[in-house]
Amino acid sequence: MVQTQVELAAEGIVTRQVRDVAMAEHVPPDVLMGGVSRGSVVIMTRGDVSVGIGEGLRTKVNVNLGTSSATCNPQEEVKKAIIAGKYGADTISDLSMGGSITNIRKVIFENSCLPITTVPIYQACAEQGIKNLTKDHILDAVRMQAGEGVSSFVFHCVSKEMLALLKTKRRILGVVSKGGSITCAYMLKNQVENPFIENFDELLSIMKQHDIVLSLGNTMRSGCIHDTRDKAQIAEMKKNAELASYAHASGVQVIIEGTGGHVRADRIAGYVKYQKRLSPFPLFVAGPLPTDLAMGHDHIAGCVGASIASGAGADYLCYITPAEHLGLPNPEQVRDGLIAFRIAAHIGDSIKYGLSIEDAELASKRAELDFEGQLCHAIDPERAEEIAPRSGPCTMCGEFCAIKIMKDYHS
Amino acid sequence: MVQTQVELAAEGIVTRQVRDVAMAEHVPPDVLMGGVSRGSVVIMTRGDVSVGIGEGLRTKVNVNLGTSSATCNPQEEVKKAIIAGKYGADTISDLSMGGSITNIRKVIFENSCLPITTVPIYQACAEQGIKNLTKDHILDAVRMQAGEGVSSFVFHCVSKEMLALLKTKRRILGVVSKGGSITCAYMLKNQVENPFIENFDELLSIMKQHDIVLSLGNTMRSGCIHDTRDKAQIAEMKKNAELASYAHASGVQVIIEGTGGHVRADRIAGYVKYQKRLSPFPLFVAGPLPTDLAMGHDHIAGCVGASIASGAGADYLCYITPAEHLGLPNPEQVRDGLIAFRIAAHIGDSIKYGLSIEDAELASKRAELDFEGQLCHAIDPERAEEIAPRSGPCTMCGEFCAIKIMKDYHS
Repeated sequence: MVQTQVELAAEGIVTRQVRDVAMAEHVPPDVLMGGVSRGSVVIMTRGDVSVGIGEGLRTKVNVNLGTSSATCNPQEEVKKAIIAGKYGADTISDLSMGGSITNIRKVIFENSCLPITTVPIYQACAEQGIKNLTKDHILDAVRMQAGEGVSSFVFHCVSKEMLALLKTKRRILGVVSKGGSITCAYMLKNQVENPFIENFDELLSIMKQHDIVLSLGNTMRSGCIHDTRDKAQIAEMKKNAELASYAHASGVQVIIEGTGGHVRADRIAGYVKYQKRLSPFPLFVAGPLPTDLAMGHDHIAGCVGASIASGAGADYLCYITPAEHLGLPNPEQVRDGLIAFRIAAHIGDSIKYGLSIEDAELASKRAELDFEGQLCHAIDPERAEEIAPRSGPCTMCGEFCAIKIMKDYHS
Repeated sequence: MVQTQVELAAEGIVTRQVRDVAMAEHVPPDVLMGGVSRGSVVIMTRGDVSVGIGEGLRTKVNVNLGTSSATCNPQEEVKKAIIAGKYGADTISDLSMGGSITNIRKVIFENSCLPITTVPIYQACAEQGIKNLTKDHILDAVRMQAGEGVSSFVFHCVSKEMLALLKTKRRILGVVSKGGSITCAYMLKNQVENPFIENFDELLSIMKQHDIVLSLGNTMRSGCIHDTRDKAQIAEMKKNAELASYAHASGVQVIIEGTGGHVRADRIAGYVKYQKRLSPFPLFVAGPLPTDLAMGHDHIAGCVGASIASGAGADYLCYITPAEHLGLPNPEQVRDGLIAFRIAAHIGDSIKYGLSIEDAELASKRAELDFEGQLCHAIDPERAEEIAPRSGPCTMCGEFCAIKIMKDYHS
């Protein structure tokens, strides 16, 4: 019987994963194990790679990739997986719903060493069609993917009660979560309760066998800022907190998705804090987008929302690319989205933990007009070099550089 | 004798400028005139174009352009001016310091109808050299540019006291304002007080003749987040507030630059509110950048800082481009920086004034899967179309679109 990180931490056993994360995060192993044991930290693992997410740790960034039923080019997805690794993603989610999904997952596994999350109902639905989907299809997809070494599963634990609450308040956009809407369609078509909640113990048992992290999906997230937070969302937050406690008590590591989607800027911080008060588990946020008007630039609007959310306590950010709302991103858009969210995570961490030495070191190099020295600390040195080749001087101020002038006259 | 908007508003005279701004901003003319009269609103004018900045009005965005001593291509600057107009800048600053500066200003004037700000000491310094610069060169540049129809002047009213304060606290980066450093160099070399403060009445008299808006520069802004807010900055804020009151009492419209540069994220809102409590005049903020690590993506980091700043009360944002710290931006980078800051202004306004109908309207079109309808409300519809040509369907979700699925099963 495999023991999960939660169980091992509770027994005081220092695992390789704990050691690796403690070293990477400069956190004492016993502090980290306290977090894992309480559930405020999870360790997502794949092979030799362990990523810690949660209390006291650096805010992490996830990259979504994968084919859709409309666009399926596995080689593009491999490129995105490579870009995710190259530009500093912490984890990947393979959301493929088009083509030969098992094979696509296989080549993504072969081309990335990052922990990988999936949404098993995607594959079940893509292969069977919404109309034919059964509980067994869903559980079979979970079992198969668990055996392949997926690091984390997303289940959308929407309830009939939440669907009823949705009808009481007129949202502009109802459910905008793909996995959530598929789950709802299955429930409504078959007049049954949620298949994940109904089979929760069986799912937990599969996840325990492989120490797979449970990520509780955010079906009720708001699809536009006018829909920010309503009874359906609050009901989901409470249900997810309850399921998370149960999963954790069963020895499964768990993350809660929430506060994502489109959220008005002035409510993001309060919303995150409300969710964090409900339960100690790491909070995974998609975006949030504080405006609906930034089509084509949603990575930038998302960076604003994610900076505020992580500063208020979100532990894990799901990136948004410039192609959000428009189509599957290309590899360059994956890069742009990832960098925007790494910036957000860093800004969030400066609010959570205070200023970083990295900023001070870059600034010191700037004071010395040492361009290469600055690049060593930049989040994306490659882009900086694309804009300003090292050979040339900065063309912004030329000879009238404030730093040079002050050195001449005020040193 | 020309009367300025401040004087006319105080006398209760409804000018064409007031009428135009009131209509554009959906504000009653008498409310607007109250603001102009108190100084909490300025109207920047060029020809037929009037832009209101300040209390109760939409947050505005300024685009910097102009040659440097290292890069001088006037046709590029004209392109940037055209792009500024096309993508929704409210004002332009021509910061040229290279080539034939008067001629460059002339072609920029010919190719843009937006209000234009200059920093007269730039031209005086570029033409005379820092070492030879005299008070008369500075005043001559002011007089000449005033006669050409410049809408607003920036003067850096740094004092000897502030320079002394700079020395008491060890900043990583000292003065990073170009105009500020030139002014400091002039003061230090000639052992004199600030030439703008010393000749303030004469400068005000020139500005009154043309109703030019005074923009009080931010020499002491912090050049990295570790330098956020110190005694030198507080001294400048107080001095600028005092000079602004004097200028306003003399009938000159005035804006205060502040809270700009690099400011730690958790202090931006408080800093803006402090400045706004000091004086009622519109606050013009460059950035601020909440991290130093975003080289090559500073427009994105700047969007985060500017969203928070405008949400806290900043009235007017100076954009930052991806080329910040690296070189003069090219026209495409001007576009990217401008759009990022229009997003920030919109997010800020949603905090200041509540949610906009534009967001709700775009969301309604999204709920109807009406792509062209969404574009009508997007900040940059052109970019959205570049990513997703109208002809094709959204490739992100294909047939498994949450909105479609919920329509099928939950309507």
